[in-house]
Amino acid sequence: MVSERSTAEAAELLACAHEMADAAAAVILPYFRTADLGEDNKLAEGYDPVTEADRAAEQAMRAVLARLRPQDAILGEEYGTQAGDSGLTWVLDPIDGTRGFVSGTPTWGVLIGLMDGARVLLGMVDQPYTRERFWGGFGEARMRGPHGDRPLATSSTQRLDQAVLFTTFPEVGTATEGAAFAQVSQQVKLTRFGMDCYAYALLAIGTVDLVIEAGLNSYDIQGPLGVVEAAGGIVTDWKGGPALMGGRVIAAANPALHAAALAILSTIPEG
Amino acid sequence: MVSERSTAEAAELLACAHEMADAAAAVILPYFRTADLGEDNKLAEGYDPVTEADRAAEQAMRAVLARLRPQDAILGEEYGTQAGDSGLTWVLDPIDGTRGFVSGTPTWGVLIGLMDGARVLLGMVDQPYTRERFWGGFGEARMRGPHGDRPLATSSTQRLDQAVLFTTFPEVGTATEGAAFAQVSQQVKLTRFGMDCYAYALLAIGTVDLVIEAGLNSYDIQGPLGVVEAAGGIVTDWKGGPALMGGRVIAAANPALHAAALAILSTIPEG
Repeated sequence: MVSERSTAEAAELLACAHEMADAAAAVILPYFRTADLGEDNKLAEGYDPVTEADRAAEQAMRAVLARLRPQDAILGEEYGTQAGDSGLTWVLDPIDGTRGFVSGTPTWGVLIGLMDGARVLLGMVDQPYTRERFWGGFGEARMRGPHGDRPLATSSTQRLDQAVLFTTFPEVGTATEGAAFAQVSQQVKLTRFGMDCYAYALLAIGTVDLVIEAGLNSYDIQGPLGVVEAAGGIVTDWKGGPALMGGRVIAAANPALHAAALAILSTIPEG
Repeated sequence: MVSERSTAEAAELLACAHEMADAAAAVILPYFRTADLGEDNKLAEGYDPVTEADRAAEQAMRAVLARLRPQDAILGEEYGTQAGDSGLTWVLDPIDGTRGFVSGTPTWGVLIGLMDGARVLLGMVDQPYTRERFWGGFGEARMRGPHGDRPLATSSTQRLDQAVLFTTFPEVGTATEGAAFAQVSQQVKLTRFGMDCYAYALLAIGTVDLVIEAGLNSYDIQGPLGVVEAAGGIVTDWKGGPALMGGRVIAAANPALHAAALAILSTIPEG
């Protein structure tokens, strides 16, 4: 828990996250927008390219942890779990939004989460190409980018009919999940697609009010969740329970808007 | 026509476009990601925010033209037409992708086209926030961005089942147009949404292979068209005719891929 950690350890953990993101960026950028991305098909039936950049970036982040935080556990998209004895786990997605990456869009990101088993203490979303980094935790919520640094704060938009809603794919999750999403989408001011993890960063900035997704893994959500919560937002599953393990996720700018969307999403069947 | 213009005039026209884009960027950036965007609803039934930034940027570009190219005509999204006597018309969209702009995404752009009445001689797509600029014309096709300069060249992907397709909205145009789009979408490797004019820039880089849209205005397409054609791509309407007046537009990386998509799109009724 945050209150049990010293200011010094919080600063150390945050510095470690920055160093990991720097290491990942340095490895990934030479692969971005090059002709041969070395794609594999991870899922035979789908299109889920895994690039050499993805693997090399997770190795680079694990090397930073081995040096600075060998006592912590690791859960990474590419190389699985590594045990630790500190009670803390770093949850890593070296390139979230690989479809966006191979398409050349600047909306993929390096995701870093730090959890104590029950809660996300620290989250980071880094976009190396635009040089934007968003982070939150230990009482801090900030971004830095090509036009300077600024604190993060979610919007005060409380009504669905005034809200901007984002999701990555128009075909959100299963047919049932997609229908629930459509119900929310019909009530909002504007729905936009295709932003990957970048949508959560925009929620933390305050220009997007809702992000709704399904079928997420823990490493897809923990980095963004830490950023959004530190900026004043709320992130849960579609029943209002914890979202840190992924699945169906709603991230909202504030509790009133969260409740309005959850009133719709929570009516759909489980599973 | 290009061949009738001197190298000196081509350089002057290109320099003018860069100066216009610089002027627009300086005006727009202070409005980006601020809480009060001063939105209006241009269309009562739709959501088409027009920001002060939009108007101020077009004024800034017109001021550059008044100084450097008073002999040329202007067609701008915000302030309509202004006559000229040179036979050249600058076609301006100060902020293409206003929905993206108000949502904080870095996929809107300043669009500048230069046409002689029959053809687009020069096109420019500028993304001020990421500091990326893409331009093409007079034998040049280049981009500059946060990681340097590079020439633009479209991909050699010739088969639909290997192509990456982009469009701005999942609900492309009318129901008939949407159905035609869906037919193409079902055959490609990957379809992505929500990128506004940035999708054409990615086509010119070579990471996207097809962009298909409908309901465009001339000022939406002339800037991107100039960039894509200079990079080796082909941009037409859905019948294979000129696209510079907007409407239904297909932009493809090369003639073979263009023909494959057009075989589907050209079968739908007019109007």
